[in-house]
Amino acid sequence: MSDQRQKRLVALTRIITSQPGVQVNLTELSRRLNVAKSTLSEDLLLVKESLETYGLGEIDSHVGASGGVTYRPSLDPAPVRTHLSEFIEELTSPDRLTPDGFLYVTDLLFSRQRMDVMGDLLAERFRSANVQYVATVETRGIPLALACARALMVDMVLLRRDNRLSEGASLSINYLSGSSRRVQSMSLARRAPVRGGRLLFVDDFMQAGGTARAAQDLLSDFGALVVGVGVLVAMREPTHKVVEEFSAIFEWERAGDGMGTVRPTEWVKKLALWEEQQ
Amino acid sequence: MSDQRQKRLVALTRIITSQPGVQVNLTELSRRLNVAKSTLSEDLLLVKESLETYGLGEIDSHVGASGGVTYRPSLDPAPVRTHLSEFIEELTSPDRLTPDGFLYVTDLLFSRQRMDVMGDLLAERFRSANVQYVATVETRGIPLALACARALMVDMVLLRRDNRLSEGASLSINYLSGSSRRVQSMSLARRAPVRGGRLLFVDDFMQAGGTARAAQDLLSDFGALVVGVGVLVAMREPTHKVVEEFSAIFEWERAGDGMGTVRPTEWVKKLALWEEQQ
Repeated sequence: MSDQRQKRLVALTRIITSQPGVQVNLTELSRRLNVAKSTLSEDLLLVKESLETYGLGEIDSHVGASGGVTYRPSLDPAPVRTHLSEFIEELTSPDRLTPDGFLYVTDLLFSRQRMDVMGDLLAERFRSANVQYVATVETRGIPLALACARALMVDMVLLRRDNRLSEGASLSINYLSGSSRRVQSMSLARRAPVRGGRLLFVDDFMQAGGTARAAQDLLSDFGALVVGVGVLVAMREPTHKVVEEFSAIFEWERAGDGMGTVRPTEWVKKLALWEEQQ
Repeated sequence: MSDQRQKRLVALTRIITSQPGVQVNLTELSRRLNVAKSTLSEDLLLVKESLETYGLGEIDSHVGASGGVTYRPSLDPAPVRTHLSEFIEELTSPDRLTPDGFLYVTDLLFSRQRMDVMGDLLAERFRSANVQYVATVETRGIPLALACARALMVDMVLLRRDNRLSEGASLSINYLSGSSRRVQSMSLARRAPVRGGRLLFVDDFMQAGGTARAAQDLLSDFGALVVGVGVLVAMREPTHKVVEEFSAIFEWERAGDGMGTVRPTEWVKKLALWEEQQ
């Protein structure tokens, strides 16, 4: 009998935690696990206590006719530290330099495993900002933005680089990008479901912040509010950015011809329990 | 004591299943849960049996000095059916039509929750194909490709639409796209880590299959083998496709001016235990 309960607890844990942010219905759970609702309630209490004790997340209960439970994961610092160090090593590997002096990083930015962890970090940073959508501009910030949206349990909004006929009426904005030193544009379909929403803007690299600033301006034309800006890597130079606030996971200080130094920022060190000798 | 074990089982389940495809080290686990390795082994056996009994996935054990366990999730048909029906309803909603007769779908393709489920389906379809990377061409197939890569526990490779100076030397291919009735191109940096790999190509929509065919050709120049093609929606017309084999989640049959009919394909119905009246 006890063995039966133990097996049920394993299944219950997996079912609930595999759908973060989703309300899992109690009636369906009791049918699926073939157990009375009263027993299920006791089981849920134990799962909740255990997850909290081990720092593995929280379970919220919703009462009423459509009663259910929702799992909210929490950040696990140990694997985060490993991913942070490995990412720095990969990013600053000299063989990433192209003959023209660019850095080939597309593979890193599309490394799902790395970006999932980085998305968890940004989500943790903006957990209390009541974010309804994560927005990014195509293309290389998409995996990070999706990972962050997953961790915040919200959907994503994509700003396009060009104005596409297939999206119907769109609003566009032109701006000066520091990285390419030329006029760039971004646009968003009028139909995009962001009106009046609270958005987190996410991108891969930030130099002066022109892209983030343009996104804020464009989205405000939709009545949407950018409540935060999160980037993977912020260049230390220029130190004056055109956005007022942003949270970078890494800061990159270039040094002459060399790769310079990439370091996690202070809030990341705190979340990951990072010690300087690492 | 029994209560202690129950709590530990909950934590153990969450830790292992939260990192699908990742080998979780036994020494670290025993330290983290503060339990002897022999006890941990008994716990793991119970977690394994329970997940199998309830159809929630499998656990593989690796022996040796760096011994550990790896979790492989399995598909849960009930939520899949809900997502399938809701997606069809959203996709065929008449207010998606732009005045120019295009269908605005970017928001759907970037709905993280929907695409996660669709990615699980494609992953299940190609589970035994020994896929090492999931490839897509920018932009709208990226969320589906990332979700599929997550479910297959592999990384993603991005084919670019244009040849970018910042990516260093690249190979490009031009091809005729059915959907836009014009010459398109795609390119991939020589540095992309796909040489000799087995790839699954994933995209959002397929008409005649020109894009998938071009991706196969381009990737074969890297010595990479496209072992499968998976798309979200395949148009019924033209019935002759230029790729030999592909797996679509939905088939869309247009009817005159109307939206026509969107249906899950046969393999999807089987996986999702879909009954026709739905």
